[in-house]
Amino acid sequence: MLAGKHAVFLGGDARQLEVIKSFIEAGAKVSLIGYDNLQSPFSGASQRDLSPKVLESADILVLPIVGTDDEGNVQSVFTSKQLTITEEHIAALPEKAVVFAGMARPYLRDLCGRHQVRLFELLERDDVAIYNSIPTTEGALMMAIQHTDFTIHGSVCLVLGLGRCGMSLARTLHAIGAKVRVGVRQSAHKARATEMGMEAFDLAELGEHMREADIVFNTVPALVLTAQVLSRARHDVVIIDLASKPGGVDYAFAEKRGIKAILAPSLPGIVAPKTAGRILARTIMELMEENSREEGLTP
Amino acid sequence: MLAGKHAVFLGGDARQLEVIKSFIEAGAKVSLIGYDNLQSPFSGASQRDLSPKVLESADILVLPIVGTDDEGNVQSVFTSKQLTITEEHIAALPEKAVVFAGMARPYLRDLCGRHQVRLFELLERDDVAIYNSIPTTEGALMMAIQHTDFTIHGSVCLVLGLGRCGMSLARTLHAIGAKVRVGVRQSAHKARATEMGMEAFDLAELGEHMREADIVFNTVPALVLTAQVLSRARHDVVIIDLASKPGGVDYAFAEKRGIKAILAPSLPGIVAPKTAGRILARTIMELMEENSREEGLTP
Repeated sequence: MLAGKHAVFLGGDARQLEVIKSFIEAGAKVSLIGYDNLQSPFSGASQRDLSPKVLESADILVLPIVGTDDEGNVQSVFTSKQLTITEEHIAALPEKAVVFAGMARPYLRDLCGRHQVRLFELLERDDVAIYNSIPTTEGALMMAIQHTDFTIHGSVCLVLGLGRCGMSLARTLHAIGAKVRVGVRQSAHKARATEMGMEAFDLAELGEHMREADIVFNTVPALVLTAQVLSRARHDVVIIDLASKPGGVDYAFAEKRGIKAILAPSLPGIVAPKTAGRILARTIMELMEENSREEGLTP
Repeated sequence: MLAGKHAVFLGGDARQLEVIKSFIEAGAKVSLIGYDNLQSPFSGASQRDLSPKVLESADILVLPIVGTDDEGNVQSVFTSKQLTITEEHIAALPEKAVVFAGMARPYLRDLCGRHQVRLFELLERDDVAIYNSIPTTEGALMMAIQHTDFTIHGSVCLVLGLGRCGMSLARTLHAIGAKVRVGVRQSAHKARATEMGMEAFDLAELGEHMREADIVFNTVPALVLTAQVLSRARHDVVIIDLASKPGGVDYAFAEKRGIKAILAPSLPGIVAPKTAGRILARTIMELMEENSREEGLTP
């Protein structure tokens, strides 16, 4: 279903290489923009400069996980050139073209909306978030092992939030022998944690659980580790904050108290770019299939 | 049972600090040799130089995990001074004194034997080896996450050997979602791996299993990953060798073939010195208790 389609990859990091590979294997015509420093170039893909011309024939435009910034700038680790998406680029896309990004800022959303180009934000999908939680969990595990002088096994680990990421993390820590206590708000999450053999407590009572904590993993995208909560922690606790920026920790207070708190978002791209890339590739393939089915239904 | 006893600590690393702490807490009189650069010295312990004089009043002599080398030299990360145990030191120990070390070279064994001093080699004990396998497993996990661009979850992991360390490692990898295949020699180990839901194969057929391996963890203290076996591996396999030096890999051949193979012994002292120290402290306490019971029985 990709055979013969023209896919343009604009910017990205090591994860995108897996996506490119699978597009080439699926028989797509692949153009790469912002990949001029690639160490081992792909045979079967052509390097292009960013211009409306390339995009005129594009069926698919694949942007990096973070999409664009508020000015339309696109990151690529494989070029030193500046890449900026402007109105004329999106306007150049054919009517039925689709755009993929991990997430989109209003800048990109507005552009696509104005030109009626379908935009898929991959990280908004439940399945992608769950698959991504696997490398995130392993990255968090690696950091916990690196930043402590004791084993995770036997230590008291608080996991804040039992969402898509918190669930994977809590399950894994429990499996390797940590004493896992999950801080949640929803009663269903409390029930699930209990079913899994872990202790659960109400996030509102986090302060009372801090004193016994050896490691705290936060997955809640809100300021949960406030100064008040941190003031009840041991000074040798290690906090690993997996929430997206700005995280869920009062970092200024943590530093003042000498508490080690590490903001660690985007772990999948760091510890397992290959796996993270395959997750994206598989999801894009599935979405393309759905998309072409829908098009078939609405001729 | 340690109260009032004189314990001399000669050399060591961060692990020994936990042992020292527990001796002080138990009321022992503690002398430290080779700890002059210690950042936060212990109140309740006195710094001494190495001499027969100090040892004349010692009930317990605690050496580092690796004991001495073949010339009687003792390592300490807390001093730049040279520390060498000679005949006169061991000869100075009182009749009922005991010596603790992780392991002992013939040099130390002979000295203790000649002077009828009881020597305990902690790492020879099953319980210590099993407790130590916990930090070893976490260290191996950390290295596997660091040195791959894919997740451990879902990857094919060969674990060679199902001894005290192999068992912990295989169990943990299985729990975090790896496809674990255990290479064993004994039929009982094959049965155990199968019972645990993992695949088991005969170590003699290792070559046939190499092609599918993403990561290989070796715990067998013998050359099992020979040139012949390595020649059947994928070039992107990662080998983590946990066997004590010189390890179980033909490193020259691995390098020639561009295979990443890492010799990683002594992980407990690196990733979890506090936990590793507590394991030693607890075991020494238990052995001292047994020892004094035995002395009570043979007056």
